[in-house]
Amino acid sequence: MIDFAQVQAAAARIAGWIHHTPVLSSRAINRIAGAELFFKCENLQKVGAFKFRGAANAVLSTPADRIRRGVATHSSGNHAAALALAGAMQQTKAYIVMPRTAPGIKKKAVAGYGAEIVLCEPTQQAREDTLQQVVERTGAEFVHPYNDERVIAGQGTCALELIEEIPGIDLIITPVGGGGLLSGTLITASSQTNPIEVWAGEPAGADDAFRSMKSGKIEPSIGPKTIADGLLTSLGTLTFPIIRDHIRRIVTVSDEEIIYAMRLVWERMKIIIEPSSAVPLAAILKEKEKIAGRKIGIIISGGNVDLDHLPWL
Amino acid sequence: MIDFAQVQAAAARIAGWIHHTPVLSSRAINRIAGAELFFKCENLQKVGAFKFRGAANAVLSTPADRIRRGVATHSSGNHAAALALAGAMQQTKAYIVMPRTAPGIKKKAVAGYGAEIVLCEPTQQAREDTLQQVVERTGAEFVHPYNDERVIAGQGTCALELIEEIPGIDLIITPVGGGGLLSGTLITASSQTNPIEVWAGEPAGADDAFRSMKSGKIEPSIGPKTIADGLLTSLGTLTFPIIRDHIRRIVTVSDEEIIYAMRLVWERMKIIIEPSSAVPLAAILKEKEKIAGRKIGIIISGGNVDLDHLPWL
Repeated sequence: MIDFAQVQAAAARIAGWIHHTPVLSSRAINRIAGAELFFKCENLQKVGAFKFRGAANAVLSTPADRIRRGVATHSSGNHAAALALAGAMQQTKAYIVMPRTAPGIKKKAVAGYGAEIVLCEPTQQAREDTLQQVVERTGAEFVHPYNDERVIAGQGTCALELIEEIPGIDLIITPVGGGGLLSGTLITASSQTNPIEVWAGEPAGADDAFRSMKSGKIEPSIGPKTIADGLLTSLGTLTFPIIRDHIRRIVTVSDEEIIYAMRLVWERMKIIIEPSSAVPLAAILKEKEKIAGRKIGIIISGGNVDLDHLPWL
Repeated sequence: MIDFAQVQAAAARIAGWIHHTPVLSSRAINRIAGAELFFKCENLQKVGAFKFRGAANAVLSTPADRIRRGVATHSSGNHAAALALAGAMQQTKAYIVMPRTAPGIKKKAVAGYGAEIVLCEPTQQAREDTLQQVVERTGAEFVHPYNDERVIAGQGTCALELIEEIPGIDLIITPVGGGGLLSGTLITASSQTNPIEVWAGEPAGADDAFRSMKSGKIEPSIGPKTIADGLLTSLGTLTFPIIRDHIRRIVTVSDEEIIYAMRLVWERMKIIIEPSSAVPLAAILKEKEKIAGRKIGIIISGGNVDLDHLPWL
């Protein structure tokens, strides 16, 4: 079972690799929310997403004799770019399995970090089979996007920096997709001398975590549909129990609420956040009466947006 | 003559009012530029622009018996919002003279800070006459957008924070419009034990500062035309001599180069910058051979953009 010591070890391990991202706040948004919000800006992290923390920790904690054969994953999102960069920084090859239907812009980003892209059919089965073949062929180290202890510990360093910088936070809220960021945050928050409450925001159109908490078992997403394209995945066997044991609330929000919150951050805070990153703020604004006057940390998960296609245009 | 002691006094005076903005950097942009760039993010300043520094310093250095009658200026841009907020924070009235043709979004921003908007015809003469009437009627303290020592000293605090945070910077580059930010930066940079070189970037379509340096006298902009709408104004009687005495280079850039640099920052740094703020980076990229390998501070002046109308769409 993963514990806070692993998060602390990860923080020490990746310190020289990551950006210590700033925490920003906005008078205007505080006024709208009726609470004091502190935004931990992982959109300003390397590769534009918190995912680099987990990928860096996985790469740096793999022994030298294994890491030299490369690293591999299946992802068409931020984890792909994160592992590609972490591999490059460790001077090893990264193999990224992507569906052949992935947008050109995402393939380009991953290729830009020097990774080798292995295309597959756009099904979960094809992804896993292709990944398996790559690992067998190359001996590369598989780093799962979220269902991996090293990754979860890495993601937990983000909340750690936040609470070290802003004392007195009594609630942290993250988005939830596969649950890596949320699990890491829960481990950090629940291990403090004064444990900090954690919520998650989830798109109503991909509400598998919400349903899983209700039923008490993993309820996979079937045909999820939301603008928050980083949150389509379902909880994993490692992330589910951590979330089940520690989470206080999951708030689901509509795409309309997500887009409103996203634009609010762009306009008022002058930072670029992707739709998935707007989900926690949308959740806060939906539950205003429950958060009135509180001191809240919000983890902005990433800023990778296609600037030619903004959701409000 | 304004000196560095005034900048230091301004820094102490406004410390509790302003955001100490972060300095960000980007591996990708460094690689493109062939230099080490440090972006001082005044787009993340209150009201989304460095202008709040100068406005805050002017308000805070006006004696109590005068400040209670209010503050006034003519501006339809970031200085208007900055003075409106500074007035509100000092619990005094701000009167903002704006041309009746100013975009609704700008009037709304100023009104949102509680200022009183006084509309006038869209000519320089009408602006000045209307401002004069407001001052006579109310006794409000006039705070010029840039031709004011208190404003220039306030703007100089931005470079001061930058060089305190990043030792070893050997060049700072700012945009130039009326010259308030550039003058303040020059005073700070030239007063260091090891003086730091300063350049400015200027739109080719509003190149009055470039021409003024060539001729040795103030050459006003006549019919300036550029996407960098914060840089349309001409140098003032206070800013011109400071710039003339200390500037090393003014680099003019096309609107096309400005839009390229603006999008590069949005994509790679995940921050929203307005076209005027992209001018220094555009200048750097145009003069790559002159800046190769140097450690350069770039002041990002603001982030107020109409998100419904992006220049590349």
